[in-house]
Amino acid sequence: MAGSSFGNIFRMTTWGESHGKGIGAVVDGCPAGLVLNEEIIQSYLDRRKPGQTKYSTPRKEEDKVEILSGVFEGRTTGTPISMAIYNKSQQSKDYSSIAECYRPGHADYTFDQKYGFRDYRGGGRSSGRETAGRVAAGAVAEEILKELGINVLAYTKSICGITIDENLASHENIAKSPLFMPDLNASAMAEEAILKRMKEKDSAGGIIECIVTGMKAGAGEPVFEKLDANIAKAVMSIGAVKGVEIGAGFAAADSSGSANNDCFYNDGTGIVKKTNNAGGILGGISDGSDIIIRAAIKPTPSIPGLQHTVNKEGHNTDIETKGRHDPVIVPRAVVVVETMVAATIIDMLMVSMTSRLDLMKLFFSL
Amino acid sequence: MAGSSFGNIFRMTTWGESHGKGIGAVVDGCPAGLVLNEEIIQSYLDRRKPGQTKYSTPRKEEDKVEILSGVFEGRTTGTPISMAIYNKSQQSKDYSSIAECYRPGHADYTFDQKYGFRDYRGGGRSSGRETAGRVAAGAVAEEILKELGINVLAYTKSICGITIDENLASHENIAKSPLFMPDLNASAMAEEAILKRMKEKDSAGGIIECIVTGMKAGAGEPVFEKLDANIAKAVMSIGAVKGVEIGAGFAAADSSGSANNDCFYNDGTGIVKKTNNAGGILGGISDGSDIIIRAAIKPTPSIPGLQHTVNKEGHNTDIETKGRHDPVIVPRAVVVVETMVAATIIDMLMVSMTSRLDLMKLFFSL
Amino acid sequence: MAGSSFGNIFRMTTWGESHGKGIGAVVDGCPAGLVLNEEIIQSYLDRRKPGQTKYSTPRKEEDKVEILSGVFEGRTTGTPISMAIYNKSQQSKDYSSIAECYRPGHADYTFDQKYGFRDYRGGGRSSGRETAGRVAAGAVAEEILKELGINVLAYTKSICGITIDENLASHENIAKSPLFMPDLNASAMAEEAILKRMKEKDSAGGIIECIVTGMKAGAGEPVFEKLDANIAKAVMSIGAVKGVEIGAGFAAADSSGSANNDCFYNDGTGIVKKTNNAGGILGGISDGSDIIIRAAIKPTPSIPGLQHTVNKEGHNTDIETKGRHDPVIVPRAVVVVETMVAATIIDMLMVSMTSRLDLMKLFFSL
Amino acid sequence: MAGSSFGNIFRMTTWGESHGKGIGAVVDGCPAGLVLNEEIIQSYLDRRKPGQTKYSTPRKEEDKVEILSGVFEGRTTGTPISMAIYNKSQQSKDYSSIAECYRPGHADYTFDQKYGFRDYRGGGRSSGRETAGRVAAGAVAEEILKELGINVLAYTKSICGITIDENLASHENIAKSPLFMPDLNASAMAEEAILKRMKEKDSAGGIIECIVTGMKAGAGEPVFEKLDANIAKAVMSIGAVKGVEIGAGFAAADSSGSANNDCFYNDGTGIVKKTNNAGGILGGISDGSDIIIRAAIKPTPSIPGLQHTVNKEGHNTDIETKGRHDPVIVPRAVVVVETMVAATIIDMLMVSMTSRLDLMKLFFSL
Repeated sequence: MAGSSFGNIFRMTTWGESHGKGIGAVVDGCPAGLVLNEEIIQSYLDRRKPGQTKYSTPRKEEDKVEILSGVFEGRTTGTPISMAIYNKSQQSKDYSSIAECYRPGHADYTFDQKYGFRDYRGGGRSSGRETAGRVAAGAVAEEILKELGINVLAYTKSICGITIDENLASHENIAKSPLFMPDLNASAMAEEAILKRMKEKDSAGGIIECIVTGMKAGAGEPVFEKLDANIAKAVMSIGAVKGVEIGAGFAAADSSGSANNDCFYNDGTGIVKKTNNAGGILGGISDGSDIIIRAAIKPTPSIPGLQHTVNKEGHNTDIETKGRHDPVIVPRAVVVVETMVAATIIDMLMVSMTSRLDLMKLFFSL
Repeated sequence: MAGSSFGNIFRMTTWGESHGKGIGAVVDGCPAGLVLNEEIIQSYLDRRKPGQTKYSTPRKEEDKVEILSGVFEGRTTGTPISMAIYNKSQQSKDYSSIAECYRPGHADYTFDQKYGFRDYRGGGRSSGRETAGRVAAGAVAEEILKELGINVLAYTKSICGITIDENLASHENIAKSPLFMPDLNASAMAEEAILKRMKEKDSAGGIIECIVTGMKAGAGEPVFEKLDANIAKAVMSIGAVKGVEIGAGFAAADSSGSANNDCFYNDGTGIVKKTNNAGGILGGISDGSDIIIRAAIKPTPSIPGLQHTVNKEGHNTDIETKGRHDPVIVPRAVVVVETMVAATIIDMLMVSMTSRLDLMKLFFSL
Repeated sequence: MAGSSFGNIFRMTTWGESHGKGIGAVVDGCPAGLVLNEEIIQSYLDRRKPGQTKYSTPRKEEDKVEILSGVFEGRTTGTPISMAIYNKSQQSKDYSSIAECYRPGHADYTFDQKYGFRDYRGGGRSSGRETAGRVAAGAVAEEILKELGINVLAYTKSICGITIDENLASHENIAKSPLFMPDLNASAMAEEAILKRMKEKDSAGGIIECIVTGMKAGAGEPVFEKLDANIAKAVMSIGAVKGVEIGAGFAAADSSGSANNDCFYNDGTGIVKKTNNAGGILGGISDGSDIIIRAAIKPTPSIPGLQHTVNKEGHNTDIETKGRHDPVIVPRAVVVVETMVAATIIDMLMVSMTSRLDLMKLFFSL
Repeated sequence: MAGSSFGNIFRMTTWGESHGKGIGAVVDGCPAGLVLNEEIIQSYLDRRKPGQTKYSTPRKEEDKVEILSGVFEGRTTGTPISMAIYNKSQQSKDYSSIAECYRPGHADYTFDQKYGFRDYRGGGRSSGRETAGRVAAGAVAEEILKELGINVLAYTKSICGITIDENLASHENIAKSPLFMPDLNASAMAEEAILKRMKEKDSAGGIIECIVTGMKAGAGEPVFEKLDANIAKAVMSIGAVKGVEIGAGFAAADSSGSANNDCFYNDGTGIVKKTNNAGGILGGISDGSDIIIRAAIKPTPSIPGLQHTVNKEGHNTDIETKGRHDPVIVPRAVVVVETMVAATIIDMLMVSMTSRLDLMKLFFSL
């Protein structure tokens, strides 16, 4: 099925395998007139580039993006923006074990069941490398949002169970932390915890938080196309994500109505909420507060050492996952979550433009 | 925007407001030949019918479904199945407070911001009553799945923080518990906890779990249309849901690769997994294990007593939520989660039929 | 498949069979604030109502529409508008011949091949009665267009090869002609031609033309979602349509570039075209001239007298089509073409709102 | 809007401008296991390659396709197939006239109205060169169809009003004619007619016919997603097409029911039709006869010599269209029509796989 596209009006289509010729994306539905060039896209891609710290795979990929269409004289033309990242570091290594055996926690087995065979090199299409296309495309979304005064910011909330202290967190710290954790104490502790896992030939997971600021009330649709429903899909579609929550999230399940309800009040400038347990969304529609999303990232399934599994013939065997793997993928996934949220938000804003006849009439009389 | 439809091949479109003429759904894309009648649909609707226990709104709605098209001589014809539930119990009560003021935790404010005005009677389109249409439509999905040997089962996992003991839980207990909690001890404790909340003029939330059994490996798409991504959207699109997780979910974030990976082995009958932290989905594709989903339900926002809020003019005021409200909506939401999951699964199965050329050739030679 | 929906942002979903409980439509994506009531919708439906002249089936259906949702205090709320037309005149006639044999020119055979069985009563879902749902839904589209200063007007261009003289045609004449032919001489001649066909136990076809006035330049998308491509789909999806053309249409194939090109010029008020062979669309995008569409309607396949055919068992046999049939369906199809074009235009206008970043910024700053 | 994608399950997304870095397509939803390589795609592209005869633009583009993803060891993997055709022959010519003035019959004016500015070089996205991406993608569709025993064949039916004699036409002649006209007498006459137009500094149009053989009955959906409706959209979305008809097409409008109805009979091998005025589609669903489509192609709007027009400032002026242009685009459009029809057919076949519960059950038990 045509499952490689995301979005209704702003739509990205991604392609590419880990060890094929490249990875890429086509962004369709970007409005004309946005300033765009390869440097802008590259700045997003660099945040997920491998080989930057000892906590990420040493695979050296420049992840250099090339814009092939849709931009003319420095601005988008409204036609599809095709972007390609050619693979440089495909090692001619021995893939026989991964070709024959199913790695636990990976999609090798399910791909074979679905398609009958697979491009096994480096995980093929199910490699984390697939997210490079999303980030390139989502970067365009985030650039449009900035023009509308909306900012999307993601960071690491916790790793190995070590969670940031909101009181010690700051925006500036995100870039200072090699783990993109805005509380530098927590970041240092998490680094130690990861190193310990690495020594134990094991891996770690964590939680990413994403905040959208500058949203007006009124975006999102009331039933199936709720803003939070689409965000949940966007975030859950990222490889290692096993859970998504909005605002108070799972904690709301144990709360009470009186504690969980966010009272409205007028602070003199307009209608605001005293608390934000709703995470900025009521009835699927933005309420003007910050939108708050959290994603649970599972520990990297590729771990050194032997694991039990079966081979393609269905025989029990052991597999030793070799290759260049991240002991924790949370930091590199931060920009993936951020750009997928951005892509969702801009698409929902676009479809929300037809909610009111009076505004439509105004628009078409411009 | 056209946000009232869900699904690609199996698609439901719902309509209706809480206190309008009725609620309904059109199911398009149901295969021809399924045994269907109003009794079958009704048995699902009865599970979310109000007024059955003291923990649900005393509003007396029969929620009697009528099939208007798409069924001939007791079987579906492959054409759209239109179903209507006419509202009977619209009270001609005074809606002036809800018309003028924004209830905390409800979508009154966001609807007004989005549409300029709203049908305020009983919450209009954002009422929980909207889910009746989903259940009628999702019931059709669940009936198809049964024909394919796939069962979807949801139940209450926890209420007020009281969680079932998996060892004491059984399928039979679900129907015995007025809260649809399969551990009757936990159910009794949860009943007490709800009664306490009611006395405190407060409300409760909880967690619903849903298990899909009988799935073969290979359903779901690898990138944006992952099976878990679509389930997340389906479940998060239900009114009060604030979080969704698959398998180990948020707990996976704190786990390690060695503990979280599910090893494959051959048990003599075929390839299975020793554990199921993945919740039956690897790389967005079903792996043949049970699919496990959990949804966090927020406490009912409608609570007795005064709450601070603002009115339509933006002035600070107080509102007393009157009307007939559930102190906890978790039990009535169980069948909503179940049928939304069913609708997602059947749609993903349908789109997965074209994954392999050899199977397509076989199909078209039948 | 979910084939009963049309449109992206403004989307209609229709349901119902000729002799079931009713016919209906759900309109999703209508902006809030449009004045709407049953009288408005009825005025469109009355134009396709049977039994008005001797050239249409004598079946007496009031085709009384009921609005079930989405309208509050006389205005649309932005939520789905559900409309139902309950069937009144289902005759308990003998359907054994149509149940067993395949009528030439009808979809009986193809339905059986596709679905395995069918609701044969009066043609079931493939009856021309299906278009009542479209007209109800498309009427909403046309009402929105009027608010934007855009008018859609369809009429009969030719019947039995008798074509209107453009010089003698006028808008006023459309309503005066029982065939909705704006040249009353041609209309009278066509009436005679139809009566002759009726005497010969035969039927007639014709051509419907549709003009859209008031369109600004800039609506429609450049590649697959061209305005003319979507109009072609919309019109060709109407039961008996066998051809669609835009502007000069098939005549353009025999023309030359110098004759067919429409030169631009400035008439003092703005940029216009000297001719309109393009039919108001260049490169899939409206050019500000009138949009001109023509649809070829085949002669009614239901004709009195014996025809050769096969039965369900595949044996050769004869069938005598009984029942109440139109000798020509062109006049009743006029409003169907008109409202389908309207539905296409409003949807394309809606998706075109995001073409330019500067206008989007302006919109979101309103 | 995301208007550069076509299809539901088999979906192509195209990108690229005439004089940018390249043109390309992503095919999503191709089943795994299809033999595919660049030579296969190239054989389709070569049929629309410029510079092959004196009747096409002398622009020398190799149109060499490169497959970037989705194929492994000579077979499709089921994941997106990304294809790129890098532009080689972008002349650094003077585009000032086309940049400033609106060419009659082209999309320059409508693009500026829609997007505010445009990539004017060689027509940018609205160049006929855009169709190279479609052909590459549609070639994949046609290859799948061949595996299912279905063949799609297009050819030139008429040019300059010179139409083939069906009795003299043969499949072999198509390749022998430089105009892809299967009647070589007509082809020779058409060549002369084109040469005459070229001498007159004028251009020609024509009609393309496309035949689909090997279709079983049952593909296509009954209401909006009719097979003919989707074909009409697919074909009308090709740049210069101004009309589409199925089977008898516009001639049916002047016919009578008795003449136009195709009687069914059993010829000993199964149910067939005595005639095929329906063009292989009844009620939107394939009836097992050949599917017959015709498309009207307008004369090339780029003609040598001065034409009146306006410039960007809205002032009246003259423009002389320079550059390398086809005096007739019909022959090069033949493969475009063919591959767009193929893409439509495979997509409709795919969505038709869920029509019957019994077949679905059989499929999932395989």
